[in-house]
Amino acid sequence: MTGAGRPRLSTKKRPGDTAREEILDASAELFTTRGFTNTSTRVIAEAVGLRQASLYHHFATKDDILDALLSGTVDEPLAVAQRIRDSRADPATQMYALAYFDAGQLGASTWNLGALYLLPELRSERFETFRDHRYRLMRLYAAIASDTLVQLGSERRPGTEDLPFRLVETVVNARADVENGRHDPTADAAGIAAAAVRVLGWTGDLEPVHEDAETLLEAVAGIAVDAQPLDRP
Amino acid sequence: MTGAGRPRLSTKKRPGDTAREEILDASAELFTTRGFTNTSTRVIAEAVGLRQASLYHHFATKDDILDALLSGTVDEPLAVAQRIRDSRADPATQMYALAYFDAGQLGASTWNLGALYLLPELRSERFETFRDHRYRLMRLYAAIASDTLVQLGSERRPGTEDLPFRLVETVVNARADVENGRHDPTADAAGIAAAAVRVLGWTGDLEPVHEDAETLLEAVAGIAVDAQPLDRP
Repeated sequence: MTGAGRPRLSTKKRPGDTAREEILDASAELFTTRGFTNTSTRVIAEAVGLRQASLYHHFATKDDILDALLSGTVDEPLAVAQRIRDSRADPATQMYALAYFDAGQLGASTWNLGALYLLPELRSERFETFRDHRYRLMRLYAAIASDTLVQLGSERRPGTEDLPFRLVETVVNARADVENGRHDPTADAAGIAAAAVRVLGWTGDLEPVHEDAETLLEAVAGIAVDAQPLDRP
Repeated sequence: MTGAGRPRLSTKKRPGDTAREEILDASAELFTTRGFTNTSTRVIAEAVGLRQASLYHHFATKDDILDALLSGTVDEPLAVAQRIRDSRADPATQMYALAYFDAGQLGASTWNLGALYLLPELRSERFETFRDHRYRLMRLYAAIASDTLVQLGSERRPGTEDLPFRLVETVVNARADVENGRHDPTADAAGIAAAAVRVLGWTGDLEPVHEDAETLLEAVAGIAVDAQPLDRP
């Protein structure tokens, strides 16, 4: 520690290129494993190796950290959903692509942040922007689902359009159960996407819609989501 | 308050026939609206109009209250699931019936207790029995789903058997969003049950399976779940 002055730089404790990213990563771990209420900014600062005063330089409150984390789970899917919706792909392909992308990102994130969606704290005005973005994402899902019902000539039962979004969010619950030691298989992103179109009345083969969805996602999101053909056990 | 001694009896604050039920109802409200960590046993005692010492007579710890509440959401579906599984109904009817019953009870409970399933506190040993019962319920779902895949001749993708249980749990998320002020329609119990068989490959009319499921539920659970025909908007 001789000649130090800024010891944090030499004892980096967390993944992340910047102090901000390290704070977010540590908070995500603490919020999802110990609970939001149980985690103080002091504990977060300690986990990153920062003084509390330096933490406040990046985030004025613990709510600001939570907001940044939750917005991160919604804002990219929202942008992708809008581009999917604006594409010329048929609705069932749009639906599969959106569910595939969103289930993939919820499943691949380092920490299972969706487990925080049901915190009563999120009802406060502080999180209005996050709630608004999440509802915008839900409405895009519902609009694509509604068009898919028309495309497939399916009967329209109240709330059916809400199901693809709900199916994608089940990735959060499945992950939580695996983290708690459950060993039974859970659906992967392709399985969730397949279910999302099935609940809307898709009855055919899923291989073509999977391939079209991959092409669409590469076009709108620049994402080579999967070089493999659809997994068939 | 003259001649009182037990003022609680004359100032009943909560629904419930017994002090135990009142404590559970008050705790369910406080845990789901303020959060588990944010709720002290003192606040629970106040909400019921009991002294804290009297509260401890019924529940030694706050964890014991949480365990009683969560077990209440799983134990009845578990018993019903076992009776459904032991019946001679075909697997698709069993699947629809279980999802219909369970989504119905999750949607109809006074408080949205499923919102507590993702609490990190539930990972502790104290909740091993609850977790074990929930996993037994999941496995019954998965066994019925697996038989339904065989019945329908559907392709078997890893994790597909997990989806009906997950779909039913989405009732919790949909309720939370409605309670937060979202107005878009969400699927009712019949909509969830329909989706549960669709993700397993059911492609036909849903009216007959709905009727068979009602008959099955009346037989195994003594529940006249719905005197109406399946809602068709």
